[in-house]
Amino acid sequence: MNGARADKLVERLRERELDWLLVTNLVNVRYLSGFTGTNGVCLVGTDERLFFTDFRYVERAQAEVPDFERLRGKQDLLGDAAERFAGRVGFEDQHMSVRQHRRLTEMLPDGAELVPAGGIVEGLRAVKDEGELRAMRDAAALADEMYEYIASRGLVGRTEREVAVDVEREMRARGATDPSFPSIIAAAANGALPHATPGDSEIPADTLVIVDMGCIVDGYCSDCTRTFATGSLSNDAAAVYELVLAAQEEALAAVLPGAECKVVDAVARDKIAAAGHGEQFGHGLGHGVGLEIHEGPRLAQSAEGTLAAGNVVTVEPGVYVPGAFGVRIEDLVVVRDDGNEVLSHFPKPLMTLGA
Amino acid sequence: MNGARADKLVERLRERELDWLLVTNLVNVRYLSGFTGTNGVCLVGTDERLFFTDFRYVERAQAEVPDFERLRGKQDLLGDAAERFAGRVGFEDQHMSVRQHRRLTEMLPDGAELVPAGGIVEGLRAVKDEGELRAMRDAAALADEMYEYIASRGLVGRTEREVAVDVEREMRARGATDPSFPSIIAAAANGALPHATPGDSEIPADTLVIVDMGCIVDGYCSDCTRTFATGSLSNDAAAVYELVLAAQEEALAAVLPGAECKVVDAVARDKIAAAGHGEQFGHGLGHGVGLEIHEGPRLAQSAEGTLAAGNVVTVEPGVYVPGAFGVRIEDLVVVRDDGNEVLSHFPKPLMTLGA
Repeated sequence: MNGARADKLVERLRERELDWLLVTNLVNVRYLSGFTGTNGVCLVGTDERLFFTDFRYVERAQAEVPDFERLRGKQDLLGDAAERFAGRVGFEDQHMSVRQHRRLTEMLPDGAELVPAGGIVEGLRAVKDEGELRAMRDAAALADEMYEYIASRGLVGRTEREVAVDVEREMRARGATDPSFPSIIAAAANGALPHATPGDSEIPADTLVIVDMGCIVDGYCSDCTRTFATGSLSNDAAAVYELVLAAQEEALAAVLPGAECKVVDAVARDKIAAAGHGEQFGHGLGHGVGLEIHEGPRLAQSAEGTLAAGNVVTVEPGVYVPGAFGVRIEDLVVVRDDGNEVLSHFPKPLMTLGA
Repeated sequence: MNGARADKLVERLRERELDWLLVTNLVNVRYLSGFTGTNGVCLVGTDERLFFTDFRYVERAQAEVPDFERLRGKQDLLGDAAERFAGRVGFEDQHMSVRQHRRLTEMLPDGAELVPAGGIVEGLRAVKDEGELRAMRDAAALADEMYEYIASRGLVGRTEREVAVDVEREMRARGATDPSFPSIIAAAANGALPHATPGDSEIPADTLVIVDMGCIVDGYCSDCTRTFATGSLSNDAAAVYELVLAAQEEALAAVLPGAECKVVDAVARDKIAAAGHGEQFGHGLGHGVGLEIHEGPRLAQSAEGTLAAGNVVTVEPGVYVPGAFGVRIEDLVVVRDDGNEVLSHFPKPLMTLGA
């Protein structure tokens, strides 16, 4: 499986007339090689696949990195890799530090040249294979279970922080390595803050509560948001909920192979703007998810490009009324050759949770 | 408090003839400004202290960053900061990516110059103030409690992974934000692997188990290691335990203001080598701890410099016998004007834990 990823990478190298790609970002190293330690570097050439790690990880690499020639380096692996450089050597310029780059330049053998080439592995990562999709289905299913768990425990009278701690403990007990990101539990006016952190005041009745969380399973992230009522709502709040839900479902249906990313964003944005809430939807519609919680492709007004089969994105419109409440509804969805596959299954009609 | 940190930074700028320092590393941003969000940049000049964040964090910055002039930037804050550049502008070259640096260079105003200046804030961070020491005492005390918890629950018959999951759940329940790093529970021959991850086999009787873990409290990390017996030991294993303990205590006593870092390392290393186990102590004696689990100063054979009051370091010699067992004993210790203060209090004499 990982061998196939390196094969695809070699095609990209040929297109860019690169002789090698030096892969230093650990998520990209993991994706290509399978290595899960904290110090490893891949050097992929048109004919060779080299993997460098230090003495601490030699045994682990033997088990995890079968498809690469494994080389034991010093703790600073860049020097070991540099000895093999020849011709045009791409490097991940969005990850490599200025200091590392200067050191590499000093060690550069005659006839070798460093070429900024960031984003190539990220481009491969944006299209998931079936093994990755299995992990993402599991991660999304666990998030669904966590919403069932929250629904069974209620919200009113618990603090935002208690709910967050409780759900993260429970997801770990059920097999998550970690949450995908610090869980957001944001009641009433807190739900209108774009980056709320769970607080210590009790969740009141008769308001809205945004719950946004995900789980990491087998290295892959899920991401799901639901907004719950805790009693009777103002007409405004109820109307905004229905608006966001309708916008979310229309945009979800537009997630198809070949769709322009900004057009998918516009499906939700135009609907929300037409109802007079355009200014209150201040973020993009969604983002890719995989080994990282934010990766390509993006669904946003400024996004370039189109969706392709194998992309996994969130669809998460929101409306935030300052000082009052917020509503966001988010599913994780796979682009398929013949349509799409929604990975989030927890129901979306407005659900009221009491104490 | 944070104002005082920026004052010290300005002294360093004057020494290096810098007009500004651009601080982009988020841990350094937090240290200087107090900001805990995920997108913030400090630009500190001899007369001005500017803090940039995007719309999502404007409210949080108002609460957390009182000592800086707060400016709302676009989501990419480098461009906003660059507009204020003048003269010699230091940047954190060990953190800034090649791509960011190229963008900054393109935006550079006339008369401004970018100067690599990484490590200045890290230098300040290596000397803790009393507020930081309070957090670290709390974090170390929680680690002590966790060792009491482990001792009360026993080890034999549980898997390494069960113990790790259990202790991390418990530390969170008692107030840790997170573990400082993934906890290490390594029984018998696993204890001899330099980077063991907890496995699924049951911990046997009559062997040694390394437990290495820490807690994050108020942003600060603790780090503590104990090695437990699970029954009767071979003469070899018992002798190695006593050797490592004696080496640890002698090195701990050498942690004093003005001591050379490599000499402190040598105190433990020479003792272990004299007993014939020098080759089996394959890592440095210790490292600084604070907002990050690994920071300055280092205690190692190759370390430069001397210890100063306010440094907080680990002292953690180990002996690893391949295929058999490992022993490591680690305390966290503060360098004080008149000696030192050990923050780890769980007892170190060999303790036997059963089922």
